Amino acid sequence: MSKKIILDCDPGHDDAIAMLLAHGSPEIDLLAVTTVGGNQTLAKVTRNALAVATVAGMVDVPIAAGCDRPLVRAQEVAPDVHGESGMDGPELPEPTVSLDPRHAVDLIIDIVMREEPGTVTLVPVGPLTNIAMAARKEPRIVERVKEVVLMGGGYHVGNWSPVAEFNILVDPEAAHIVFSAGWELTMVGLDLTHQALATDEVAARIQALDTPVSDFVLGLFDFFRAAYKDAQGFDFPPVHDPCAVAYCIDPSVMTTRRAPLTVELTGTHTLGMTVADFRAPAPADCPTQVAVDLDFEKFWGMVVDAIDAVSTSKIAA
Amino acid sequence: MSKKIILDCDPGHDDAIAMLLAHGSPEIDLLAVTTVGGNQTLAKVTRNALAVATVAGMVDVPIAAGCDRPLVRAQEVAPDVHGESGMDGPELPEPTVSLDPRHAVDLIIDIVMREEPGTVTLVPVGPLTNIAMAARKEPRIVERVKEVVLMGGGYHVGNWSPVAEFNILVDPEAAHIVFSAGWELTMVGLDLTHQALATDEVAARIQALDTPVSDFVLGLFDFFRAAYKDAQGFDFPPVHDPCAVAYCIDPSVMTTRRAPLTVELTGTHTLGMTVADFRAPAPADCPTQVAVDLDFEKFWGMVVDAIDAVSTSKIAA
Amino acid sequence: MSKKIILDCDPGHDDAIAMLLAHGSPEIDLLAVTTVGGNQTLAKVTRNALAVATVAGMVDVPIAAGCDRPLVRAQEVAPDVHGESGMDGPELPEPTVSLDPRHAVDLIIDIVMREEPGTVTLVPVGPLTNIAMAARKEPRIVERVKEVVLMGGGYHVGNWSPVAEFNILVDPEAAHIVFSAGWELTMVGLDLTHQALATDEVAARIQALDTPVSDFVLGLFDFFRAAYKDAQGFDFPPVHDPCAVAYCIDPSVMTTRRAPLTVELTGTHTLGMTVADFRAPAPADCPTQVAVDLDFEKFWGMVVDAIDAVSTSKIAA
Amino acid sequence: MSKKIILDCDPGHDDAIAMLLAHGSPEIDLLAVTTVGGNQTLAKVTRNALAVATVAGMVDVPIAAGCDRPLVRAQEVAPDVHGESGMDGPELPEPTVSLDPRHAVDLIIDIVMREEPGTVTLVPVGPLTNIAMAARKEPRIVERVKEVVLMGGGYHVGNWSPVAEFNILVDPEAAHIVFSAGWELTMVGLDLTHQALATDEVAARIQALDTPVSDFVLGLFDFFRAAYKDAQGFDFPPVHDPCAVAYCIDPSVMTTRRAPLTVELTGTHTLGMTVADFRAPAPADCPTQVAVDLDFEKFWGMVVDAIDAVSTSKIAA
Repeated sequence: MSKKIILDCDPGHDDAIAMLLAHGSPEIDLLAVTTVGGNQTLAKVTRNALAVATVAGMVDVPIAAGCDRPLVRAQEVAPDVHGESGMDGPELPEPTVSLDPRHAVDLIIDIVMREEPGTVTLVPVGPLTNIAMAARKEPRIVERVKEVVLMGGGYHVGNWSPVAEFNILVDPEAAHIVFSAGWELTMVGLDLTHQALATDEVAARIQALDTPVSDFVLGLFDFFRAAYKDAQGFDFPPVHDPCAVAYCIDPSVMTTRRAPLTVELTGTHTLGMTVADFRAPAPADCPTQVAVDLDFEKFWGMVVDAIDAVSTSKIAA
Repeated sequence: MSKKIILDCDPGHDDAIAMLLAHGSPEIDLLAVTTVGGNQTLAKVTRNALAVATVAGMVDVPIAAGCDRPLVRAQEVAPDVHGESGMDGPELPEPTVSLDPRHAVDLIIDIVMREEPGTVTLVPVGPLTNIAMAARKEPRIVERVKEVVLMGGGYHVGNWSPVAEFNILVDPEAAHIVFSAGWELTMVGLDLTHQALATDEVAARIQALDTPVSDFVLGLFDFFRAAYKDAQGFDFPPVHDPCAVAYCIDPSVMTTRRAPLTVELTGTHTLGMTVADFRAPAPADCPTQVAVDLDFEKFWGMVVDAIDAVSTSKIAA
Repeated sequence: MSKKIILDCDPGHDDAIAMLLAHGSPEIDLLAVTTVGGNQTLAKVTRNALAVATVAGMVDVPIAAGCDRPLVRAQEVAPDVHGESGMDGPELPEPTVSLDPRHAVDLIIDIVMREEPGTVTLVPVGPLTNIAMAARKEPRIVERVKEVVLMGGGYHVGNWSPVAEFNILVDPEAAHIVFSAGWELTMVGLDLTHQALATDEVAARIQALDTPVSDFVLGLFDFFRAAYKDAQGFDFPPVHDPCAVAYCIDPSVMTTRRAPLTVELTGTHTLGMTVADFRAPAPADCPTQVAVDLDFEKFWGMVVDAIDAVSTSKIAA
Repeated sequence: MSKKIILDCDPGHDDAIAMLLAHGSPEIDLLAVTTVGGNQTLAKVTRNALAVATVAGMVDVPIAAGCDRPLVRAQEVAPDVHGESGMDGPELPEPTVSLDPRHAVDLIIDIVMREEPGTVTLVPVGPLTNIAMAARKEPRIVERVKEVVLMGGGYHVGNWSPVAEFNILVDPEAAHIVFSAGWELTMVGLDLTHQALATDEVAARIQALDTPVSDFVLGLFDFFRAAYKDAQGFDFPPVHDPCAVAYCIDPSVMTTRRAPLTVELTGTHTLGMTVADFRAPAPADCPTQVAVDLDFEKFWGMVVDAIDAVSTSKIAA
């Protein structure tokens, strides 16, 4: 039986790969894609999401726009990493799929309350604003979702500050709400995603598919590689967001460790840090865990297969 | 032409008086009453709102329930001030009016977007959770409302801490969102409302009306007086919330002073303080002002008249 | 019997007046003047202290330099208020008195431990760095001093931020140590000192003395008036620091109110605020009080008399 | 040429080993031992220091007591780790060496200002209160010391909170002063010291010395092992403090990595964290580095040799 997920994202190069991975994997039933201001403004990331859906022939999945700024703080975007469009690099088609009229927060609530309890997994890979707003507007979703598998944070690695990651740091109060809600939560953070590098060998495997979708992915990789080289000194770009989707497809793609997690909201140098307590074994009822080690081959195998599946689908553009 | 307001409240003794004042004043067009967890849990304050509407014969005003807890922090309620029910004292009737099915946040957004721009005044007299959520979910309401007139805070007076007031302190992040949004905002804080004392003379004037509604109000006063005496040493209880409604009816009921306002979010001893900068004249474009001095006679005249109007209405219970 | 005080200061225009008031008042036995980086750098305020001592013929009082920067934070000085020299305006003589070789912190400790318990009053009128360092280096002084009478803070008034005063804000951790030490403490804050205005009438009375010392004081007033006019819009400058000395001479020069006081160390908008809890009568063992109302005539009478006494003394320059 | 150090400590089991290592190593010229309230109260750790000096025949090294509590915060001690005496386990002799009358802060300043510039290394292995006080009282020591090699903190490991270590967490403001002073600083933190385990094999090597000093050390190990087992689940106790001394003897005993370091002062979950920025190579002028990997054999070789040297010295008890 396939796994029902809602992908909440801010495309974003790696968000696009996450969309393709979810759409192209038979193990996943993608109930909705929702967008949130993050890597770029809400208008830009929403247009990018529609463009990716168009490239991928993703015609039956509702796509809804959500919050345009963080819960409490002023917005900060990441043009150094994702460009002015939020997804610079490949040429983006005019979207042929259209936006769902509902607000993302309401769409998330509607789906979770509509589906059987314990069946929907939320997969946020951008700032956690939509998820936090949904949990506050309809608190019953916390009991009702199956779990949250998010890309964000890091227990020993930061990127937007020495110890904090972008998605968490730009809306730490939303992250606090999501991390402390009590639902089963897996943090796929930088500790893990910095292992998911789009190496030359990976790029070669994707190039070998030789389809419009694989060309699109290579265009994303090219820009992303240059941006990560310039901004953070990486030789190959870490492709963060699909890691969370990959965990939903098959948790054995990574090891995890259970630990209490809290989000720092008042630190001067640690704002937005996802603090993991590894001093003792986690309590038996600890609902949170962190991703530790990635099975690199299995992960990229999933991604290549999904791109292939999307490419050969009749619905692909 | 009457003034369109949405009253967002958490009844609460003084909230009940605010509802009666709004309902009984011809200068006010009460578009909706929305409730928020605050003085007591959402379930309790919503039931209280329906009970007050029943007492007052308020049959045509939509009443909708909103957020059940603060945006970011754990909930704190005030049973020492308002009792276990949130409105201890008078006997509460079984509600004969029913709840609007919409979420308060959506009802606020719907009304503001439906009415002409610049015509709707938001009057929050509880924690600012609903208003903040509405501003984040639909940012266009900020430009579209006429103004916000709120009961909360205090520039030189606190009650829930030495320098912070309950409504702000229990959800300071929501208050920050509302205070910094940019809309015209009048803070009717403790500096002002501690002048709105329900003295013996005031009670005598209400008693003289000798109606079910005036009896109900006296029942509220009796409990509230005892609670304020015990908890905070007041001889007569300050009746906070109707002051904000009174300002909407006729701004001349109080003097105001324009000043930049910020809400303290990280202070150890000052969390939730509404910091007013009085060091220099406010900049010309300063959108915020604070209430300073109350016209005691005019205020209680408004309240007594409204109770009288509600009492004599055919629709009153 | 005269009152033994140590004046810890950062001259500073009003600090100079405080030195003159202490030196010229028979009720005061000035045991030492210690300096601290504050209004200007330690080197500048120490030179200014020596210059004032020279003007005043203060030859028998040890003057010692102390800490050159705040306990924890980077230094901030106030050239807009006190000029580049820290005491711009009057011509400053070459000092003919010399500096005590001891560190101010050690001099304070030595004096307090040398004198009878309960006889020495500390009168800090600058940042509280020296006093805090002394209390940490020799904790026994806390029990041994008679009391601390300080100029700084404000319960409803700020100058260096909307709610914080310069002396406290530039070294809030030192202030926290001093305010929470447990000794008897009187805060003579901006609420009081903004009443101590050097009006035209005051200046005329001083001018009538017609001595080198009175000329020196008028030179201080002239610069201070212009600075306060430009920087904070005052018509006449508040002469803060001598108010603390005046309280030592005769407490009836001001009314006070007992209240628990805490210094805010983590607030974003309230850092360095001296938070007074006026919500209830102070507990019986509350060791802190704040100055409220100044007897303007009595205060300036003290100052004029002291300037006169210093002027006519044989030791005056 | 031997290396001049001042050991600032709070014995403490591992502090005692650090004293023995410094005293017994010919590469070290131990100029002074200073004590600070930390693992236990100042009175207790000072008595313990004198007892260790007595056991070790350390008769020519001045031992001075310093600050009895943290700079800004209330004191917290660690009886769960070190027992009620601060050094429970072995029988402690009546001290036959006596305390230097100077305050530790003054002794540190005196020595640094007396010795040639660039020759004295400060080795704090307790809370950094004394060092911070010395730097504030006599700022010239910052330029004048050779370097600071401290035991405290951790870049990825905490013990007193999920991400903070005891020495830093109990006086974070002092740590901030020391970490940001600008002097060359090596942080030997928990990342390193959790490798310095007193294993059975280590204990056996020490037992083989079969002297009163080795018996004393084994007594320390026995208590420390049980305490670490109970409190933190370790099989063998990490012997933190001598690691900093070992680095002074021979830096090749550990690898280090240069990185900017800051101490978190306002975090709710991260107070006292030593934040290292590993996102990019450290700037060329970065004065701070962290210890990474311990050469276990070399380290314990140093310790065993020192215990042997102290044991066989004519001056040993």
